[in-house]
Amino acid sequence: MEDFEFHNPTRIVFGRGKEARIGVELKQAGIGKVLLVYGGGSIKASGLFERVTASLEEAGVAFTEFGGVASNPRLSHTREGIALAKRSKVAAVLAVGGGSVLDEAKAIAVGVLTADDIWDFFAGKEVTAALPVYTVLTLAATGSEMNGNAVITNEETKAKWAIRSIHIYPVLSILNPALTCTVPLDYSAYAAVDAIAHVIEGYFTKRPASRLQDRLVESIVKTVIETTDMIMADPANYSARAEFEWAATLALNGLTPAGIGPYSFPNHMIEHSLSALYDIAHGAGLAIVIPAWLRWYRKHTRTLSQFERFANQVFGLSGAEAGINALEEWFVKIGAPVRLATAAIPVEDIDRIAANAARLAKCWGMEKEYPAAVIAEILRLAA
Amino acid sequence: MEDFEFHNPTRIVFGRGKEARIGVELKQAGIGKVLLVYGGGSIKASGLFERVTASLEEAGVAFTEFGGVASNPRLSHTREGIALAKRSKVAAVLAVGGGSVLDEAKAIAVGVLTADDIWDFFAGKEVTAALPVYTVLTLAATGSEMNGNAVITNEETKAKWAIRSIHIYPVLSILNPALTCTVPLDYSAYAAVDAIAHVIEGYFTKRPASRLQDRLVESIVKTVIETTDMIMADPANYSARAEFEWAATLALNGLTPAGIGPYSFPNHMIEHSLSALYDIAHGAGLAIVIPAWLRWYRKHTRTLSQFERFANQVFGLSGAEAGINALEEWFVKIGAPVRLATAAIPVEDIDRIAANAARLAKCWGMEKEYPAAVIAEILRLAA
Repeated sequence: MEDFEFHNPTRIVFGRGKEARIGVELKQAGIGKVLLVYGGGSIKASGLFERVTASLEEAGVAFTEFGGVASNPRLSHTREGIALAKRSKVAAVLAVGGGSVLDEAKAIAVGVLTADDIWDFFAGKEVTAALPVYTVLTLAATGSEMNGNAVITNEETKAKWAIRSIHIYPVLSILNPALTCTVPLDYSAYAAVDAIAHVIEGYFTKRPASRLQDRLVESIVKTVIETTDMIMADPANYSARAEFEWAATLALNGLTPAGIGPYSFPNHMIEHSLSALYDIAHGAGLAIVIPAWLRWYRKHTRTLSQFERFANQVFGLSGAEAGINALEEWFVKIGAPVRLATAAIPVEDIDRIAANAARLAKCWGMEKEYPAAVIAEILRLAA
Repeated sequence: MEDFEFHNPTRIVFGRGKEARIGVELKQAGIGKVLLVYGGGSIKASGLFERVTASLEEAGVAFTEFGGVASNPRLSHTREGIALAKRSKVAAVLAVGGGSVLDEAKAIAVGVLTADDIWDFFAGKEVTAALPVYTVLTLAATGSEMNGNAVITNEETKAKWAIRSIHIYPVLSILNPALTCTVPLDYSAYAAVDAIAHVIEGYFTKRPASRLQDRLVESIVKTVIETTDMIMADPANYSARAEFEWAATLALNGLTPAGIGPYSFPNHMIEHSLSALYDIAHGAGLAIVIPAWLRWYRKHTRTLSQFERFANQVFGLSGAEAGINALEEWFVKIGAPVRLATAAIPVEDIDRIAANAARLAKCWGMEKEYPAAVIAEILRLAA
């Protein structure tokens, strides 16, 4: 065990119909007006928008609407949200949507309290304050509902970068798994890949021997695989959606890395360039990167035993390569792409993608291990 | 998955020497004076008291000493602490010790802010406020460092009862595993039994089928068993002490029961009477109760598959009874008592113990399933 700090103050309210409580919760916290952030309007078609706003109105909480958040949320739209929130004098930000909506809401919450440009924080400036963030989650995948991370894409520079701060942990996240029962099967598959990616980055890149954290990771991966198989067979299976949702939340809430020491996010680093350049779903990009990275990393790591452990504990198989193959085959089975061409990404673009990713590698302090040439080498394993 | 709420605002600072930060942490939180609660003086012999008070003095945080907390902390002593804290006008309570010290510190933190007698809260009155609680942990076992529970014994009525409240989660708990390297082997064994007890109560008494939570429990139990075996072989093994400590914290911080629905604490209910009546270590009492209760429960539950799962996942064995036997044998191996006589508790006292436990069963709403006659029947399996 390495030294660590763990602090996750987010309160989770989990279960059917719990979104009806949002108004009362805000009222009890003394919040009179919120910026209501959402995406492309599916929450209006589903009736969720009406239920949430009815809850706000019943509790006497005013709101200013701010829709139109895109997947891979954009800096320009974030800036619009900040300006609107400042004009509207809201006391909190309420995100109703998936990870993209939550991430943009977090960035807006930071931007409201500063005169600096919000991108400065993504480029490294420390976040020292934010409006309280509340969320009603509609897609389980990113873990944003219970962590202090937010990822935004600067569409001018094609940089998909992140902020991390204790100030942007949601105060309250409401998780009603029934809201995720209508997530299409392709996005359900990408969500599964994303949740697995969140836990295996640390699992493979940390130093060896932290048996509890290894077991927690394996518990989450096995649960994600089992429940996703159930969801693929029956998308409206509430129980499977619920277990998946909680597993996805625990996958990136600080639990699994606590005590494992230094680790890195190479798959996320490379994937961010795929989704920034080609606007594909984050989980689809991860499905392409992960098997390629695992095959590359297996030849460059001293902890080969971790690959054998993964194969054995997660899939009941022997041998490092067997575990990688099994994971890749499972990605294919659930409909996630595992080659660049499947996502219509030209193999000829590999050097361009690698150059883009190398910028993020530098930002994350990974440029020594992952220069552009290495990133290109990894991407060629997905060709 | 059943509906649930999860909220654990405690910040954990984990690692060697971290207790030196306590003064700065209090100062940064604006706290000028604390009640420094501790136990029998071992922290003075070890030098920890001096390190902690030096940290306070350096940061300019004043303190009033309050030592003498007993294991199975007592109501009368708690009342003394409350009176002292009121007279001293402290702004927070700092507990330096094991679970007993932390629990009494939490009760004091509640008592300072009310004119009511503190026992009223243990008898059911709702806790609505408490002074902030800070802790430096010296014995990993109870999980008190990251939860809102406190157990106190009323020595007049021999009632060992509990309070639960969001207000008594520690604001900050400092966990330095090196401080636990000197815990004697008998108490290290009792600590292991306690941590296992915390997770298996829910594992066996909930309704079946919550695969993620089952896996989290099995991950914790296996880690506790492995690291305790390492500690028994080498008590100063920092790495084993560290992994054990974090496993014990996660065992009762709300993680494993989130989403499992209703469950109960029959082993704790029965054990509280053993330690209240005979002043034995809580973990020793649990080692006596658990195998007996498991054997009784196996005949009275509809979820026999959970016993088979436990045997298989934790011990790699087949059959419900094999798992119970393996756990009991492991308790014996690490030196924990598994029969009443081993702890010098007369078998003739069983009805008296059962009558005492039945009071707590009523307080916890378990009197239908566990009338005194059933408790006596369970205890006879430990005769």
